[in-house]
Amino acid sequence: MSLNPKRTVSELKELRALTGDENGAQRVAWTDTWLKAREWFATKIKNLPVEHHYDPAGNNWVTLPGASEKTLLLGGHLDSVPNGGWLDGCLDVLAALEVLRRINAEYGGRPPITVRLVDWADEEGARFGRSLLGSSAFAGTHSIQADRVRTDRNGVLLEDALRRCGVEIDNFPEAQKERKNAKAYLELHIEQGPVLERMNLPLGVVLGTKGVERHIINFYGQEAHSGSTPMSARRDALAAAAKLALEIRNIAKKHEDAVCTMGSVKTYPGIVTAVVGRCEVTLDQRDLNVSILAQMYREAQEASRRFAAEEGCRVEWSRLWSIEPIPFHPHLLDLCDQSIQETSGTSHRMPSGPLHDAAEVSRVGIPTVMMFVQSLHGISHNKIEDTKEEHLELSVVALDRLATKTMDWIQKQT
Amino acid sequence: MSLNPKRTVSELKELRALTGDENGAQRVAWTDTWLKAREWFATKIKNLPVEHHYDPAGNNWVTLPGASEKTLLLGGHLDSVPNGGWLDGCLDVLAALEVLRRINAEYGGRPPITVRLVDWADEEGARFGRSLLGSSAFAGTHSIQADRVRTDRNGVLLEDALRRCGVEIDNFPEAQKERKNAKAYLELHIEQGPVLERMNLPLGVVLGTKGVERHIINFYGQEAHSGSTPMSARRDALAAAAKLALEIRNIAKKHEDAVCTMGSVKTYPGIVTAVVGRCEVTLDQRDLNVSILAQMYREAQEASRRFAAEEGCRVEWSRLWSIEPIPFHPHLLDLCDQSIQETSGTSHRMPSGPLHDAAEVSRVGIPTVMMFVQSLHGISHNKIEDTKEEHLELSVVALDRLATKTMDWIQKQT
Repeated sequence: MSLNPKRTVSELKELRALTGDENGAQRVAWTDTWLKAREWFATKIKNLPVEHHYDPAGNNWVTLPGASEKTLLLGGHLDSVPNGGWLDGCLDVLAALEVLRRINAEYGGRPPITVRLVDWADEEGARFGRSLLGSSAFAGTHSIQADRVRTDRNGVLLEDALRRCGVEIDNFPEAQKERKNAKAYLELHIEQGPVLERMNLPLGVVLGTKGVERHIINFYGQEAHSGSTPMSARRDALAAAAKLALEIRNIAKKHEDAVCTMGSVKTYPGIVTAVVGRCEVTLDQRDLNVSILAQMYREAQEASRRFAAEEGCRVEWSRLWSIEPIPFHPHLLDLCDQSIQETSGTSHRMPSGPLHDAAEVSRVGIPTVMMFVQSLHGISHNKIEDTKEEHLELSVVALDRLATKTMDWIQKQT
Repeated sequence: MSLNPKRTVSELKELRALTGDENGAQRVAWTDTWLKAREWFATKIKNLPVEHHYDPAGNNWVTLPGASEKTLLLGGHLDSVPNGGWLDGCLDVLAALEVLRRINAEYGGRPPITVRLVDWADEEGARFGRSLLGSSAFAGTHSIQADRVRTDRNGVLLEDALRRCGVEIDNFPEAQKERKNAKAYLELHIEQGPVLERMNLPLGVVLGTKGVERHIINFYGQEAHSGSTPMSARRDALAAAAKLALEIRNIAKKHEDAVCTMGSVKTYPGIVTAVVGRCEVTLDQRDLNVSILAQMYREAQEASRRFAAEEGCRVEWSRLWSIEPIPFHPHLLDLCDQSIQETSGTSHRMPSGPLHDAAEVSRVGIPTVMMFVQSLHGISHNKIEDTKEEHLELSVVALDRLATKTMDWIQKQT
């Protein structure tokens, strides 16, 4: 029995029918719909000679034991955001399943090395605001005390929601045992951006996940009457913020793949008849290169202070969150590149702006690479998220080629 | 008995003690505290030979009949915003009262022309969002059908709140009868801006109230993931709005007293991880010159379209409100100028950004002028609103001089 990429597309549609509605995918982690998706997935592996279990963080492991204990991991996540797309995360899992079937068939149930499929628990963090939950437990980068008391919008505690699914957050550290013998991790994902579509390419190699600096910036000026305060007498907090909103684009454009985004602006008092006394904005900066990220952060700070001074304001920064860049494994990048070229002719290397479970796996030293398949209009986390079926099929073929090359590479390691 | 400006300051303090609290003045129109202020005011005129009544719009009239029916009006308002200042509006009324006392004393109760004091009802519009309510009824520019259904934050109808104070909104047009024989209207007010303080002048002549163009502007771009969307692929609605926030300052600065303000910015979806798909801003433009105001409005529209095009966005304008400039009476401007020069040495002519009841009086053809007294730090509508006591006293003296000159001018009219 050989690889059947059309089956992956058909299974994706089956999952969509089972766990989506008119607003999109509803497989939010720790909900009944998510559990239903996992039950459905369990039926798909029934006839394979695999071991199947959930680890203490709720990650879903399917193991095809090989002649060697050295292990190739293939991963993804079945959970989605509310009103999500039909591909985000589950393409990865179902393509990996198809690859696992092919390997099983090719080696009569006993490949030269062990191959494991993992469906990570709660990649999205959609319900409790904590993404990469399962993979962080695997990596030992969990934050149990901070996370257990998170609540969803109905006030349900994260700890209680997990317990309902049989997961005790205090046991998260035991999930690290799953790292044993892991020699490589591969993850296919939709791009969730417009780059491959603009280049008219179906597939791309992911260089790593960008580091992120995420801040709240407050400019303090002087609230004043819009009618009685001359232009020259104003200390307009919005003017300083507007200058920064434009300058962050210059800061980002110096670097090929860097991005800087001001996603939120709040004005106080925020009424039509008053000069803005306080302006609160958010800044999200990302790059794969740690020194470029640091430079952009520094330049944005300097610019904010300069603009504040020009406008008679003061500025305060407060870090919301940050993560270092996670570059993927150089040799696996090459293998991924080859696999794509053999599959669709032309490859392209690009960083990932969004984070993925692969970042958690990579940061504990397991050689990791990701492959992107084109997203139509670059849109994700939305019911209109889509990818051409021919591209989905190509992505299964390319992941399969990459798995073969990676197994060879692992076998050669002493 | 001669003019006693110190009494005005002392009465202002008395009113503050009676109708303010630790958060400032609480004389919001149509509330018990406002009614209490009016009752207190009634006690102040008990010993004067005046007629006292409330007109059908709730305006509070005190008439000192003269030898001639030709009438000089002196006005202000006792109502305040919530947590307001101790001077806004009631300085005007209490200074006018002091002037009325002086005229009464000087002419033994029968001046050559009639002098009337008016305390306008609901200048601020703080509770129902409709300013100049009483003076618009006087001017016949009321908007009864639109206003009667206004509600306060507790859902109380404007119509019902007025009825509780004995005012039937349907009778508003009858307030126009009060215009009979009015030959001039004078109003003293705190500046509510920083101009006189910056010039180190106690008093200024008000050229008129600026016209206002007030709009909501929506920029529509494309919401996109902050991590996966390259800078070059973005249609950032905030970038277009930020350019406009800066450009309106250039548009205003071409003209001496013009102002343009972006007071509110709202971003959608307004989250740290998304490029802004829609940005809604407000624009408030003011000038005393009707053609400058029209030019600024046109230039802002053109700029917004240019910036929208540059950012791949579209833009929509929606008018919130507008009013034409109301220039005051040329001869009364001269008399006001002379009165200030005689009182404090140097005068300055300036437009008023904020609207005042004087604008409603002026627009029906009654010769009108206003006088400003310095505001410390230009701050108003706030408990820290303040003016030096010596400046308050000077303002009473100057208003009194202006009243004398205006009475002479009215007498000479045939």
